[in-house]
Amino acid sequence: MDAMMMGAMSKDMMSMPDMADMDMAMMQECMDACSACEQACTICSMQMMSCAPACMNCADMCNTMMRAMMRMQGMTKPVMMSMLDACIAMCQMCMDACMEHADHSEICKMCAQSCKACMDACSKMRDAMMATA
Amino acid sequence: MDAMMMGAMSKDMMSMPDMADMDMAMMQECMDACSACEQACTICSMQMMSCAPACMNCADMCNTMMRAMMRMQGMTKPVMMSMLDACIAMCQMCMDACMEHADHSEICKMCAQSCKACMDACSKMRDAMMATA
Amino acid sequence: MDAMMMGAMSKDMMSMPDMADMDMAMMQECMDACSACEQACTICSMQMMSCAPACMNCADMCNTMMRAMMRMQGMTKPVMMSMLDACIAMCQMCMDACMEHADHSEICKMCAQSCKACMDACSKMRDAMMATA
Amino acid sequence: MDAMMMGAMSKDMMSMPDMADMDMAMMQECMDACSACEQACTICSMQMMSCAPACMNCADMCNTMMRAMMRMQGMTKPVMMSMLDACIAMCQMCMDACMEHADHSEICKMCAQSCKACMDACSKMRDAMMATA
Repeated sequence: MDAMMMGAMSKDMMSMPDMADMDMAMMQECMDACSACEQACTICSMQMMSCAPACMNCADMCNTMMRAMMRMQGMTKPVMMSMLDACIAMCQMCMDACMEHADHSEICKMCAQSCKACMDACSKMRDAMMATA
Repeated sequence: MDAMMMGAMSKDMMSMPDMADMDMAMMQECMDACSACEQACTICSMQMMSCAPACMNCADMCNTMMRAMMRMQGMTKPVMMSMLDACIAMCQMCMDACMEHADHSEICKMCAQSCKACMDACSKMRDAMMATA
Repeated sequence: MDAMMMGAMSKDMMSMPDMADMDMAMMQECMDACSACEQACTICSMQMMSCAPACMNCADMCNTMMRAMMRMQGMTKPVMMSMLDACIAMCQMCMDACMEHADHSEICKMCAQSCKACMDACSKMRDAMMATA
Repeated sequence: MDAMMMGAMSKDMMSMPDMADMDMAMMQECMDACSACEQACTICSMQMMSCAPACMNCADMCNTMMRAMMRMQGMTKPVMMSMLDACIAMCQMCMDACMEHADHSEICKMCAQSCKACMDACSKMRDAMMATA
């Protein structure tokens, strides 16, 4: 995301009682990883390979996850952690499905990498929230 | 959802090894509850009350949940249960936020009811999946 | 959509200067047709036939269209008509793509019917808005 | 979007009869503008100012637009142009709504800029498609 927009959004978020201890750089990284994963999955699903249904589910979940991070006013830490768990599980499953074609399809390989990056970013967020919950 | 479409979809789903024991009537009920909750939350968010951010998050999560149930080819039971958990947590949170205005706003009251119905339908699905996992 | 929710939403909408002359029954019919079309297209895309990319585009457009009708506070008639045009064009294209398989696939046949119904409901809305623009 | 992913996607797209003459750099710019606009609008809507309903509509339309460009297999040029028209109209309306608060809100100012950038990128795409239609 745009750095200036992130800055303005962070200022708003810092004033929320539950969110003052949130690491904003980590959160931005996570939103960017969700956005990149939605895009990679959407493109990958167009190949109509066996991973396509997982890719479509993963694209929707990543978009929902990204938006939820932009709307922390409508979140609590426990709900956030539950959504991160779902997003991590979805990304893992999609990555596994894409890895089966990684040798034959450059797009699947890149999609699997995006899923891995999103999974890692969400796990990092989850661990940080857990530590301060 | 349309009964004939549900019938045609069920036939496809029954041929998936993991899904043969799925209760299709229960699943249809859950998809319909997700769809109704997305709609109620979208309308409720327009009131610009304090529940609006939760309503927006809940609308997106419910849509993603509904679509995932229509794309079980791209799902496993554990991922599905993780998403159901997230949807249940989100609906609960949104219901609580809307209940604070239920005395003043007819829309909030109805939105809270939709959230409750969606939460219950997802919990039922989750319990059934757990039992056969 | 739930009739009581529609009633509550209509009351809010009637107070908008631009929307007082909107036919709410027609609008509800259109939102329901968009919702049904999103669902049919999502299911149809799982067949991985040649219509799948059109179905995915159509599902997203119909969801966006439905939500926009629930958020008329963030709309003007000209923007609404432009979005209805896009939705009509998308539904027409998806219907054509599905009709090519209607003899072989019950799901494609039903999806084409949902696209047709959505196209017709959007056209009706568009004509009504044009008449009062 | 990631440059390597765009490269891989372009190769697929070039093989479509209708899309061989598409300017891929222009398209990537447009997808990125849609993605940035969805994010800005989602954040801006959290301010619960009068532009919020327009921002929510714009976020959904921009996401649908971006995805449609990633799924050109399910598009024709006329449908694409119709969707670009709708997206341009929506961005224009949202920009106008946000500009009313640009003096008071840094977020509204940035959101209006994102809407403008998306509007311009979509217009460029539309003109290019028109020229080759």
